[in-house]
Amino acid sequence: VFAPPVNRLIGELAKLPGIGQRTAQRLAFHLLSVPDEEALPLADAIREVKEKVGQCEVCFNLAVETTCRICQDERREASVICVVEQPGDVIPIERTNEFRGRYHVLGGALSPIDGVDPEDLHIKELLERVSGSEERSRGAGPASTAAQTIREVVIATNATTTGEATALYLADAVRERSPDVAVTRLASGLPVGSDLEYADEVTLGNALRGRHAL
Amino acid sequence: VFAPPVNRLIGELAKLPGIGQRTAQRLAFHLLSVPDEEALPLADAIREVKEKVGQCEVCFNLAVETTCRICQDERREASVICVVEQPGDVIPIERTNEFRGRYHVLGGALSPIDGVDPEDLHIKELLERVSGSEERSRGAGPASTAAQTIREVVIATNATTTGEATALYLADAVRERSPDVAVTRLASGLPVGSDLEYADEVTLGNALRGRHAL
Repeated sequence: VFAPPVNRLIGELAKLPGIGQRTAQRLAFHLLSVPDEEALPLADAIREVKEKVGQCEVCFNLAVETTCRICQDERREASVICVVEQPGDVIPIERTNEFRGRYHVLGGALSPIDGVDPEDLHIKELLERVSGSEERSRGAGPASTAAQTIREVVIATNATTTGEATALYLADAVRERSPDVAVTRLASGLPVGSDLEYADEVTLGNALRGRHAL
Repeated sequence: VFAPPVNRLIGELAKLPGIGQRTAQRLAFHLLSVPDEEALPLADAIREVKEKVGQCEVCFNLAVETTCRICQDERREASVICVVEQPGDVIPIERTNEFRGRYHVLGGALSPIDGVDPEDLHIKELLERVSGSEERSRGAGPASTAAQTIREVVIATNATTTGEATALYLADAVRERSPDVAVTRLASGLPVGSDLEYADEVTLGNALRGRHAL
């Protein structure tokens, strides 16, 4: 019923995650109704991001250059690596201002049902980063500096079934290859501001097991 | 926290209606993660639609040429005009297969609070279409043909406060200028499949007032 260019735009919008046919139609009509100066910058921004933004070759976070801004930042502790599923997970952790180390983006979580196996994620690269740092600190190469030793790997995958499975897999893999490196996991417990009454029993169980002295 | 091109994309996405900062971020990360062949067609579709699609100069519906496909279609009855608020409203009416006339897109609804006055909508053009057709049918010009006489204006603005106000305004304006033209309004009543129990009293009142013989 629409002109072909309109159909095409609706089709492209509907490919976005969480955007159904109806929303796509609404967004298309919005883009049609606004002046060019409001609609075209979106087209330009998509082009620009695809042209300029790639992956950090160290941690697989988003990067405009070959490495990301966090990997380039000398003030960040190189001895702690926080492992996350997606580039978007870096942001909430940065916002806490509690973490001063580096990151490693896996690119997803293990999910055999969906065909996501260890080799589909950047797990090999993580293990190399961690064990490579040990070798360097033992003086195996000329680039050896104490600052490059990785002491701790914080596993910050999602608190979902696949995220937890990935965390267990990574903990084993890191321990096996680099037994001196501490492997930690984000705490599970009551979210701030929540009522005990409405907490699910698994979360509350985790909160109990993780209790600490006051 | 993001690289400037990513921030720019998130900003542009967040300008879309109903897309908040979080959704914009999610969509941006999606576009970043898919191959170019999946992301760039969206940019192209936006450009194409802004370049090629404009307004029909007769009815203000979307049009790739100077007039829209419905206005160009000789088989559509020229004697009935259905008045809608937005181009998107044409689609659901076409889907009913109940309407074989032409359209007139107002470009919105009257809303003095939001600064939308009659001169901001395509009301003048509607009145000219309707009264111009009468003059032509009276033999005022050489283009006079009976088929061009408009007999009825169906007001299909939304069943909202502003849509109803617009309908009343249009009914008065058309009647004043073209007293021989019938002005009708879409029926209000129970949606198909709905329970009386859950109907709001205004809708149910409309359904009662609009009752018809079986």
